[in-house]
Amino acid sequence: MKRFSMIILYLLLSFTMLYGQEHPRLSLTLDGVKTIQAGLDNYPLFYEEYVKAKQEVDQAIQTGLDVPRPKDMAGGYTHEQHKRNYKLLQIAGNIYQISGEDKYAEFVKKILVEYADMYPSLGLHPAKKSYARGKLFWQCLNDANWMVFVSQAYDCIYDYLSEKDRKHLENNLFVPFANFLSEENPKFFNRIHNHSTWANAAVGMMALAMGNDTLLQKALYGLKDDGIDPSEVDNDGGYIKQAGLRKAGFLAQLDYSFSPDGYFSEGPYYQRYAIFPFLIFSYALHNTKPDLEIFKYRESILKKATHSLLQLTNHQGEFFPINDAQKGMAFTTYELVTAVDLMYWVDDSQTELLSWAASQGSVLLNEAGFYVAQKITEQEITAPVKKSILLGDGVDGKEGGISILRTKGIDLLFKFSAQGMGHGHFDRLSYSLYNETGEVIQDYGAVRWVNVDQKGGGRYLPENKTFGKQSIAHNTLVVDEGSHYEATVKKAEKAHPNLYLFDAANEDLQVISAIENNAYPAVSMHRTFIVFEDEAFTNPLLIDLFVVAADTPHTYDLPNWYSGHMMQSNGDCKGNFSSLVPIGKANGYQHIWEIANCTIEKDMHTFNWLNKNRFYTKYAITSPKDQFIMGRAGANDPNQNLRADPVIIHRKTEQTDAVFLNLIEAHGVYSPITEVPTQPYGTIESLHLDYADGNYTSFHFTTATHHWQVLFSLKNNQATAKHQLNINQMDYVWTGPLKIIKTKHKK
Amino acid sequence: MKRFSMIILYLLLSFTMLYGQEHPRLSLTLDGVKTIQAGLDNYPLFYEEYVKAKQEVDQAIQTGLDVPRPKDMAGGYTHEQHKRNYKLLQIAGNIYQISGEDKYAEFVKKILVEYADMYPSLGLHPAKKSYARGKLFWQCLNDANWMVFVSQAYDCIYDYLSEKDRKHLENNLFVPFANFLSEENPKFFNRIHNHSTWANAAVGMMALAMGNDTLLQKALYGLKDDGIDPSEVDNDGGYIKQAGLRKAGFLAQLDYSFSPDGYFSEGPYYQRYAIFPFLIFSYALHNTKPDLEIFKYRESILKKATHSLLQLTNHQGEFFPINDAQKGMAFTTYELVTAVDLMYWVDDSQTELLSWAASQGSVLLNEAGFYVAQKITEQEITAPVKKSILLGDGVDGKEGGISILRTKGIDLLFKFSAQGMGHGHFDRLSYSLYNETGEVIQDYGAVRWVNVDQKGGGRYLPENKTFGKQSIAHNTLVVDEGSHYEATVKKAEKAHPNLYLFDAANEDLQVISAIENNAYPAVSMHRTFIVFEDEAFTNPLLIDLFVVAADTPHTYDLPNWYSGHMMQSNGDCKGNFSSLVPIGKANGYQHIWEIANCTIEKDMHTFNWLNKNRFYTKYAITSPKDQFIMGRAGANDPNQNLRADPVIIHRKTEQTDAVFLNLIEAHGVYSPITEVPTQPYGTIESLHLDYADGNYTSFHFTTATHHWQVLFSLKNNQATAKHQLNINQMDYVWTGPLKIIKTKHKK
Repeated sequence: MKRFSMIILYLLLSFTMLYGQEHPRLSLTLDGVKTIQAGLDNYPLFYEEYVKAKQEVDQAIQTGLDVPRPKDMAGGYTHEQHKRNYKLLQIAGNIYQISGEDKYAEFVKKILVEYADMYPSLGLHPAKKSYARGKLFWQCLNDANWMVFVSQAYDCIYDYLSEKDRKHLENNLFVPFANFLSEENPKFFNRIHNHSTWANAAVGMMALAMGNDTLLQKALYGLKDDGIDPSEVDNDGGYIKQAGLRKAGFLAQLDYSFSPDGYFSEGPYYQRYAIFPFLIFSYALHNTKPDLEIFKYRESILKKATHSLLQLTNHQGEFFPINDAQKGMAFTTYELVTAVDLMYWVDDSQTELLSWAASQGSVLLNEAGFYVAQKITEQEITAPVKKSILLGDGVDGKEGGISILRTKGIDLLFKFSAQGMGHGHFDRLSYSLYNETGEVIQDYGAVRWVNVDQKGGGRYLPENKTFGKQSIAHNTLVVDEGSHYEATVKKAEKAHPNLYLFDAANEDLQVISAIENNAYPAVSMHRTFIVFEDEAFTNPLLIDLFVVAADTPHTYDLPNWYSGHMMQSNGDCKGNFSSLVPIGKANGYQHIWEIANCTIEKDMHTFNWLNKNRFYTKYAITSPKDQFIMGRAGANDPNQNLRADPVIIHRKTEQTDAVFLNLIEAHGVYSPITEVPTQPYGTIESLHLDYADGNYTSFHFTTATHHWQVLFSLKNNQATAKHQLNINQMDYVWTGPLKIIKTKHKK
Repeated sequence: MKRFSMIILYLLLSFTMLYGQEHPRLSLTLDGVKTIQAGLDNYPLFYEEYVKAKQEVDQAIQTGLDVPRPKDMAGGYTHEQHKRNYKLLQIAGNIYQISGEDKYAEFVKKILVEYADMYPSLGLHPAKKSYARGKLFWQCLNDANWMVFVSQAYDCIYDYLSEKDRKHLENNLFVPFANFLSEENPKFFNRIHNHSTWANAAVGMMALAMGNDTLLQKALYGLKDDGIDPSEVDNDGGYIKQAGLRKAGFLAQLDYSFSPDGYFSEGPYYQRYAIFPFLIFSYALHNTKPDLEIFKYRESILKKATHSLLQLTNHQGEFFPINDAQKGMAFTTYELVTAVDLMYWVDDSQTELLSWAASQGSVLLNEAGFYVAQKITEQEITAPVKKSILLGDGVDGKEGGISILRTKGIDLLFKFSAQGMGHGHFDRLSYSLYNETGEVIQDYGAVRWVNVDQKGGGRYLPENKTFGKQSIAHNTLVVDEGSHYEATVKKAEKAHPNLYLFDAANEDLQVISAIENNAYPAVSMHRTFIVFEDEAFTNPLLIDLFVVAADTPHTYDLPNWYSGHMMQSNGDCKGNFSSLVPIGKANGYQHIWEIANCTIEKDMHTFNWLNKNRFYTKYAITSPKDQFIMGRAGANDPNQNLRADPVIIHRKTEQTDAVFLNLIEAHGVYSPITEVPTQPYGTIESLHLDYADGNYTSFHFTTATHHWQVLFSLKNNQATAKHQLNINQMDYVWTGPLKIIKTKHKK
């Protein structure tokens, strides 16, 4: 028995060593190359990718690749050229392996030698904008990007190179480069942060390519002693060190970067960016260190992260732009193609990934991409399915979270996550609403045009801080014209909202509810969204109940950043229409022009707008002194960095406790071709709050024919709890936190 | 011989009488019905249309159609219901004929009887908003629409009805209705105007359905004596009577409504609306009075009008929104389906119409639609082809015109047409620019949401007059902050621009040039657009040369209503970014917020913007005192009727003669998915005016490698004329009005 164990151990070791000796071994393997070569033109999706990539490299071989001395910021020439180079080198390496033509290896070698010749003479990049300046780029992050790609190129031509060539490249370029990214930049390398994931992956992948175990250990487990001052922050205002965290390196990133549901605290835009080094390095580890079982690590956290990310997209496949995020980034991006292909290759029981891959329409140039292309050719593919989801935030999954309620073309995104580090916006309990065509109630996203040099070198613009991150720029409550946690990351990271209720089991009555008690001193905020389907309405109705409790009077502002054009409002609107001033002086208010200020005598405000040829009406219960401020972004914006987006802000002044109750009804459509409006007005005739104390809220709304009484328990979220309320001389008894009772009007 | 002629005459008469006796005879014929019945489900496009229409009618039969007493404005219930009714009745009539099922005839009869029972008791519509109030609707125009559709429905069930039923309907509804639209509303019936075309068609078609020759004569030739005061105007400010025109009726509409090229002076949006009664009545005449040869009338003017209209669409198939026009109206509209199907049926040698029909994806429910569906099923269909065009305006084709220069995805629309009656905008020599994705330099269109009750009952909004029609709202020159012709239709109708030059023979160098000398007293305006393709540029370059001559100093404003977001400008911009005021007090200026005012020390202003992920740069030559005003629409707009669109206005003050020279370069693209900007900056390095007098303009522009000298003759447009100029000690000799000379920079 002992002998047998020894044999097993020996076999395992040999296997591992074998893995560790072959080239290529990172994102492409010898076996993979053989498989691909044997069926290169069998599967159109792969073959087209290959032909396109080959043409691109051929073109580059013909014109040559410039390797300029680093000078420019993002968007500038040297920055973009080095980016272009590393991508091309990686592709050229793969083309070399698949085609077997030496000219591709020679091309990669030539460029790498140019880098190796230049690298020793480089100091820090001249632009002093980053907390961790790079050498090829203005920030180490881009240098790490470079190495993640170039390590794959090097891996592909490793066997083509002479020992002397390898020595030159490793001694003058790769090793000092890896040391620079790790030992020389501990603040960059040793955090729990997407920057460090890139750093770990870069160093780790190059270590695997070179067979350098010392570097690999650093990549996996971090630097032993980094000496980082716990008060240091990065460019985005995020802490370098997280309190209590003493681990670092790639495995620690896996431990701490995602919640158990696979949610990444910065939000999907950065999760998309962050997941790439996780996957590509894990894949290299999977190929070289299979005993690590990296894809099973932390209950297959990377699998969960991939699936979460795919779910965090709208109907166009674009990521919801919460926190710092540029709109338009979509699941068809290279990072997600990587995620989908690799995860499917690792576990092909996830057939839904094939659906996503088919929608992406492109595959990786390796065996994973080849396998996906094969399956897409051979199998019948269905459309990807998206569902209502709840994703807990935080390492333990208990620091609030994010939820999407979905039904019949509607995506309601409710954000009650933790701060999301330096890229987080101060928008606790905010929401956005989408239909099949896009935004209905929008999240502004980041004030930035990524990589567009004309706009501040492609970096975050000043208005990202003064407007984009501020609470008033979001669809959530603002107290006394200040932002949540005074718009300070440090304060905001100390607390998070808590989930109160999530129930999407019944598609026709879904609810998500969360509580935030720390955004303002002594103000408790409890927001609940109900997506409610009833045959009386053309589309599901959205109910937005925001219960605020405080101990002193405040001014409460609840903005709705609607997309589209205002049609009509029942308010009595006043404004000085021949001059505009901002609605306030600070905290984002200084960036919003006041178009009009409306009051209303009735107890229900209606606001009707046209959103890409669909009519929407928002109904709000009102108190006599309430104001509805119509605004538009763009004030105090000398460089026109802001979009001129419209907003309507519901303001309550001098209130201690308050209930904001909004209904949003999508009721009609318009065709500019037939010019026929169908149901341009909403069907809700009244909306009334019947009961509000700390324990319960009850309200009703009516159409011409029906009455709906909504009963909601604010304190007991148990499904089995029984409740009783007397409202308008009627006794209501129900079970569970939420009940809606529909009745026909008495004739 | 004489006997033979008599026989021919007899046969002709019998033929005509036979045509005149059968039912249906208007938009459907007995022969057509037989053909359709024999192959009903052979051609998917027709059969699907039929099934859909039948379901719609079945549904209406089940739920019933309300015939309410008229009360509401456009967008309101009774208005929309009567519209719905007439459309359904027409469809139901066709379904009756094709299916042969009596229930459809019975349904039509029932509803018509309801109308006949109500009609005698109706006075004028209660809304007093129209110069010609209707009875079912607020304006006669809609009443005429009703009759055009209902005449077809009546025609279809004519033989089904008893003599008594017909008497009831004709005596109580159709005849008095027709008299109301003609004799009782001469101002509506006897104009040369699209309103009257509808009136003529309505009365004429009902006359044909009933066999009432008296009414038919009125429809074809107008009322003998209308007693209209020549100073009367309609709701849009257009004259009821056109000076010198003494003809009326349908044939006169054909004589005067279109230019010889088939252009309709109000522009494509109204041409689309106006062409429908022309075609549907002509088709009925074609079927009943073939000896009229209506489709050959005026050298087949309806054929030309159809083809012109199809050409006046952007890449999305939407009509260019010049004059009063709602954006989004497209060639897929019912009126154009009618035009394409009927014109193809009348002359199937126009194979390009099949391409358009296939793109429309729907066909008429008659033999024309059936034939189109058959051909689409049987033939290989190519995509519709669009070309650069020149369409003369005016009855003689010499009152200016409109031109589209097209090449490689670009549509440049240059408007130098006459006023376009009451719906014309005061925008002589204005232009708009489109690419494959839509607007680049936009025309605002009308300030209106057609039929949307919430917005002023769906009518033109006040800002249409105070902004939409004003010159500053367009991409053309404004002198001393006033509009062309003082924004007065009467003055504007007295003069028109004149074509100077059009040459699109060479796709790589196309030119359109026109002169307007009457928009302002003693100010001559000569504008020239050159679309220029050169391998040095990624896309064709647009050159915009605007030469102004006057006898006293003026302020000149040249706005560019760009679509997209400003990226960067090289101006020195000042503004009070914490408060906004309009850029002026009247003539549309009061509606534009001044965002910033920029000056520039260099002699070239550059303005770079991002338009749906494409980078554009506009270059302008500048004089030391020039200003560039950044503005945004929306000032003095209490009901938020205006879109918040951006504009950049080039202002020259205290200038007598002036040259505005602009280049627009589309140079780069951006992907929010790869986040890579390609060529975000333009390639033009300098732009300089070298020579400007009344006879010639010469200028040059350069890139890093090349120099282009442009030579243009302002006074002699002859292709054979020889010219000579000395510029910068160089002698240039060329032939024809325009010459561009490209040279490489000397090293």
